[in-house]
Amino acid sequence: MSEPKLRAKELDAADGLAAQRAEFVLDEGGGGSGGEGGGAGGDAVYLDGNSLGALPVAVPGRVEDVVRRQWGELRIRSWTESGWWTAPERIGDRIAPLVGAAAGQIVVGDSTSVNVFKAVVGAVRLARSADPAGGSAGPTGPTGPARDEIVVDATTFPTDGYIAESAARMTGCTLRPVAPSEVPDALGDRTAAVLLNHVDYRTGRLHDLPALTAAVHAAGAYVVWDLCHSAGALPVGLDEHGVDLAVGCTYKYLNGGPGSPAYLYVRAELQDRFDSPLPGWNSHAEPFGMRPEYAPAPGALRGRVGTPDILSMLALEAALDVWDGGGVTIEAVRAKSLALTDFFLECVEAYVPEGRVECLTPRPHGERGSQIALRCQDAGDVMRRLIERGVVGDFRHPDVLRFGFTPLYVGFADVERAARVLAEVLAEVSAETGV
Amino acid sequence: MSEPKLRAKELDAADGLAAQRAEFVLDEGGGGSGGEGGGAGGDAVYLDGNSLGALPVAVPGRVEDVVRRQWGELRIRSWTESGWWTAPERIGDRIAPLVGAAAGQIVVGDSTSVNVFKAVVGAVRLARSADPAGGSAGPTGPTGPARDEIVVDATTFPTDGYIAESAARMTGCTLRPVAPSEVPDALGDRTAAVLLNHVDYRTGRLHDLPALTAAVHAAGAYVVWDLCHSAGALPVGLDEHGVDLAVGCTYKYLNGGPGSPAYLYVRAELQDRFDSPLPGWNSHAEPFGMRPEYAPAPGALRGRVGTPDILSMLALEAALDVWDGGGVTIEAVRAKSLALTDFFLECVEAYVPEGRVECLTPRPHGERGSQIALRCQDAGDVMRRLIERGVVGDFRHPDVLRFGFTPLYVGFADVERAARVLAEVLAEVSAETGV
Repeated sequence: MSEPKLRAKELDAADGLAAQRAEFVLDEGGGGSGGEGGGAGGDAVYLDGNSLGALPVAVPGRVEDVVRRQWGELRIRSWTESGWWTAPERIGDRIAPLVGAAAGQIVVGDSTSVNVFKAVVGAVRLARSADPAGGSAGPTGPTGPARDEIVVDATTFPTDGYIAESAARMTGCTLRPVAPSEVPDALGDRTAAVLLNHVDYRTGRLHDLPALTAAVHAAGAYVVWDLCHSAGALPVGLDEHGVDLAVGCTYKYLNGGPGSPAYLYVRAELQDRFDSPLPGWNSHAEPFGMRPEYAPAPGALRGRVGTPDILSMLALEAALDVWDGGGVTIEAVRAKSLALTDFFLECVEAYVPEGRVECLTPRPHGERGSQIALRCQDAGDVMRRLIERGVVGDFRHPDVLRFGFTPLYVGFADVERAARVLAEVLAEVSAETGV
Repeated sequence: MSEPKLRAKELDAADGLAAQRAEFVLDEGGGGSGGEGGGAGGDAVYLDGNSLGALPVAVPGRVEDVVRRQWGELRIRSWTESGWWTAPERIGDRIAPLVGAAAGQIVVGDSTSVNVFKAVVGAVRLARSADPAGGSAGPTGPTGPARDEIVVDATTFPTDGYIAESAARMTGCTLRPVAPSEVPDALGDRTAAVLLNHVDYRTGRLHDLPALTAAVHAAGAYVVWDLCHSAGALPVGLDEHGVDLAVGCTYKYLNGGPGSPAYLYVRAELQDRFDSPLPGWNSHAEPFGMRPEYAPAPGALRGRVGTPDILSMLALEAALDVWDGGGVTIEAVRAKSLALTDFFLECVEAYVPEGRVECLTPRPHGERGSQIALRCQDAGDVMRRLIERGVVGDFRHPDVLRFGFTPLYVGFADVERAARVLAEVLAEVSAETGV
């Protein structure tokens, strides 16, 4: 047995989270028919959980109950009797500990894009309504400095930039795209809001949330963090670091299913002043009062909009059960995530000729999320062949192979196999193309 | 057998849509245990389909396939192989014939509230970018008259008013609530957009969509119709009447399930100028190009925002299969709907002492949706007792009993029973309270 294979065996044996793999459906397909069946969990190595998490075992039965009994039998009564109405805040409270938030600050619902809109417009309005002394000015009328700039991560996942542009246009702001490392220098009296990604979707770089949050606050502005690529993979510490607003999807490391609803975090101290641009009836203080005048609900509920999509939402709720197992903490997940990505890089170094791929993901643990991005020639073709052989990652235009590592169901043998098959595919492509 | 019971029997025997009832799950509970078991479909008469449609038989199996096979086995591949990515426009095209729209004008996704925001802001921008000659001015910069008013139905379901208020605030407009009958007089050079409900959620009044649309157009403004209480219950004729934009939910007469995604219609001729305030990556001309600059997709796709909630969306797709049966046209549904509400009023007159309830729903067919709203004292208590006896309607604050009639699964015997139980309950309440 090769050195990396032996090492994988040792690492899997010592893995305190190994048992969680049984909480997911991983044995059937997913990577075509070319797998070798040598992984710990069947014929595919699924390294695309950073795009769509695998199916938790608890989900199908729960969804069936929601459809057949809650909808089919109880029908309208389920809004109260099956807890449909309160699902957005109840499930928000399940996500809260995973991102370091106390209860009552997160509501689930809508897409990430829609939540970015709520959060960025909300942040601009907070900045404009802020009492310069840091007190609690009312939500109406600017009392602080005239703030007319929104700073956005120039390397952001595109939707954040598009939505921030719309938010800027609709609040009379200018949008300034800035590389995250240069954000502190770009801040000033005119900065209203800053929208940043915790982990870069393409490179897997982890940005310094505590330091950047502090810099934004020092400038008197409000920060919105997009947690899509960090929630469920590493500690976020929203409360600890005084983050103002945050959004994230739930279908990556939280395994909520395709297009499962996103969430919005509004720090408790800001909730009374949070002024949503989407004040739907679900965010009303008295939603069934059917009053013509809007009056916002207190607390996190203020981030709700319309009727929540119950099927997707309750599938997510079932998916979150995987976090209830003994020892399944976000800290344990982070430790394994770093071990997995370290080991993947080790295996790539062992198997792939030097210079054939370039790692875009930072080596220091403090700057790394839970994915590895490798740049190489013919990346699209390489990924296609990898998937044919049961190693499922994804391709990001123009030249990036992206491998996501979900510690709850990816093991070290998977990692070794992925690197080995990658080396085989690269050798094959090189032989064919002369690269 | 009483006269109304005999008449119900005849009407059910002649009902060309009676067979559609078998397409729905109606035999189990839903109205408590007090039912008499005498309805054609079991122990409950479900007259709350205008709030949450009953479960179509086709849905549970489809959802199970989506969860277990498409997500659980194919995982990320389902975005292409299971048609997830194109679901919003594909399902939009399934809804289109039900509301009188040609293909390519409807996308499904987000809540009704979010779609109201897109549509109202979009309508204001259309008004401001309009070439006075009716040509195709670019989407940037006003070339038409300064239009700074949004007119909204003063009796609207509240969320439309709240969202319209936000749209007004964010586009520098004033919001003018106006009773629908007075809308024509309220229109003028300053009107940018008008948001109206096709059917009033409370009274069941059907508004004159062709005439009001024409009046809005005559004023040079753009109209947004909310079809929540009409789509699936009666012909809408969006294309025929030149409606500009429309939104609607899918969980009432379209039976899509709790919180199933809403939809947005943008008339084909306006799509190139439709300028969404929520330009998420799903509406980009090249969504996987990951370009930092936004460029809107052509056609209805421009109304998409973020990643669609696939579970809820594909449940809706399965629910729409009930419209594929022979003879299931929206015209046939409308004819039966009117027969059902006529018969309900007849039965109420036969069974309930005169003056005990007041009908808020207009008698003329041209002004009636698919529900009957009755005002009475102690309405909350009355509805509670009705539900206990298996007649499920709903209560609208402060004094309205609301009964919705979904022609695909409600029969005439149900209607007779509902009116009879209503009379019993009213007599009981009168005896107790002396009303």
